[in-house]
Amino acid sequence: MSAVLAMIDFSPETGEATGFHLVDATSPQLRVDDLAATRGDGVFETISVSYGRLQALDAHLERLAVSARMLDLPAPQLGVWREAIIAVGDALSATGLDEGSVKVVLTRGVEGGTAPTGWALGLPSPDFTRERTEGISVVLLDRGYRHDVASTSPWLLAGAKTLSYAVNRAARREAERRGADDVLFVSSDGYLLEGAVSSLLLLHGDRLVTPRVDIGILAGTTQADVFAWAESEGLQTGYELLRPADLASADAAWFVSSVRHATPLREVDGVARPIDAGLTARLNEALLARID
Amino acid sequence: MSAVLAMIDFSPETGEATGFHLVDATSPQLRVDDLAATRGDGVFETISVSYGRLQALDAHLERLAVSARMLDLPAPQLGVWREAIIAVGDALSATGLDEGSVKVVLTRGVEGGTAPTGWALGLPSPDFTRERTEGISVVLLDRGYRHDVASTSPWLLAGAKTLSYAVNRAARREAERRGADDVLFVSSDGYLLEGAVSSLLLLHGDRLVTPRVDIGILAGTTQADVFAWAESEGLQTGYELLRPADLASADAAWFVSSVRHATPLREVDGVARPIDAGLTARLNEALLARID
Repeated sequence: MSAVLAMIDFSPETGEATGFHLVDATSPQLRVDDLAATRGDGVFETISVSYGRLQALDAHLERLAVSARMLDLPAPQLGVWREAIIAVGDALSATGLDEGSVKVVLTRGVEGGTAPTGWALGLPSPDFTRERTEGISVVLLDRGYRHDVASTSPWLLAGAKTLSYAVNRAARREAERRGADDVLFVSSDGYLLEGAVSSLLLLHGDRLVTPRVDIGILAGTTQADVFAWAESEGLQTGYELLRPADLASADAAWFVSSVRHATPLREVDGVARPIDAGLTARLNEALLARID
Repeated sequence: MSAVLAMIDFSPETGEATGFHLVDATSPQLRVDDLAATRGDGVFETISVSYGRLQALDAHLERLAVSARMLDLPAPQLGVWREAIIAVGDALSATGLDEGSVKVVLTRGVEGGTAPTGWALGLPSPDFTRERTEGISVVLLDRGYRHDVASTSPWLLAGAKTLSYAVNRAARREAERRGADDVLFVSSDGYLLEGAVSSLLLLHGDRLVTPRVDIGILAGTTQADVFAWAESEGLQTGYELLRPADLASADAAWFVSSVRHATPLREVDGVARPIDAGLTARLNEALLARID
């Protein structure tokens, strides 16, 4: 494995990021009392590296800052993070891979300490050709929260990209137990939300829609890029409150995410549904060709 | 700080715990791709060390195994964990402290690896005298889930003691913003649940009650010990569905937890409420004197 790891340097006095250094990705770097490891207390982003290019880097850095604010973490020094991510992306691309990713993590640091912990880890991507062409099967699972939870109860951190993802992983295991590839979360009052690590897109005629981002879901960076591309292709786009019936009646449906890009949903709760192979191919071509 | 750290040794072939070794608690021990640090994917327990004695060790080990099962983690080899915890507890007690704790953590290990990661970290406790005698103020905050979520949606992991505690910490910060010391979670359909790291106890006359554990909360080890003691003192005990009105009408109310023991609730949502100083003192005396 050709992993590349940059640890962010923080000033113990100010808690601000001052630089970074590359280290062996297989060496231990974290104390056991880092709040990432003991409380899932931190935020992250995953940035795609496609044929030597970091994709949507600004959008990811901005969302990292938004998530940090939602968790009352110190605002990240985005200039330092950007340099570290570029260094990791360059080192990763130098190994000659076609597709990879850089995962960036900002934690609250060691319990009782004075500075955060942060790193950027570059990894080669698995081959997603099958998922991108043949599609995936999903099951609908209750996320337990109402669709208005982000406004009524901000301490539940709905819509922040936190390290506390045990539920997302448990939901994916439940999907596997049900014979499916992935999970599509639904609010406790019946609205479609998002995948464990993906945004949902539905096509109705020439209109591409995604769930409204004020219902406790992540504002998708890839979804935003897809919308921009779709509009340039003459499609309409919209943010809506969507229900399972809207998925059932859609002409096509996809999960989109930074690294896996667009995967058509070919089956929902055991029921096969149509996929649009042509549009999917053009979508993935556009996503692979993205430049910041 | 006189922290004591034991790292559990796992066989890379079988994934089973084979022993442990003591290391410098301030040295880095975890890789950045440990799923504890990237996904909050693991479970933990905190065991009190009181005047040289590990308290309720069996109950904590059993609950660690229950949490591991809820997360589909491999069953921990409790014999090895016990030895590691005892070694850490002994080393901690040898420093002469009165009260401390051993936090044990079991994670899913490095992403793509073959074995879990685990450790036991011993720390001296802060002085809880003020909280135990004068009490604490709490605010009621919605946890977002219905009271029946553990049975309808087990993938939400309600009632498992996972490392994904970012919400608990955010709720405590919200409590601080509201001028309170701690949070008491309420289900989205209005039932009292638990604190961020404590069980709730209410006294009505000579009857001591706590929320039913089938409503997505943790089965409290300290609460169980309190019930055993209370019954020996001639009090009645019960597990019930409780609402905020039951708290308002209670003769006394406490948070109980392994390390802080019993802290009376002296204020709820800004409204002062009675505390029972005599019973609280006897309760904490009994908890401090516990032997496994």
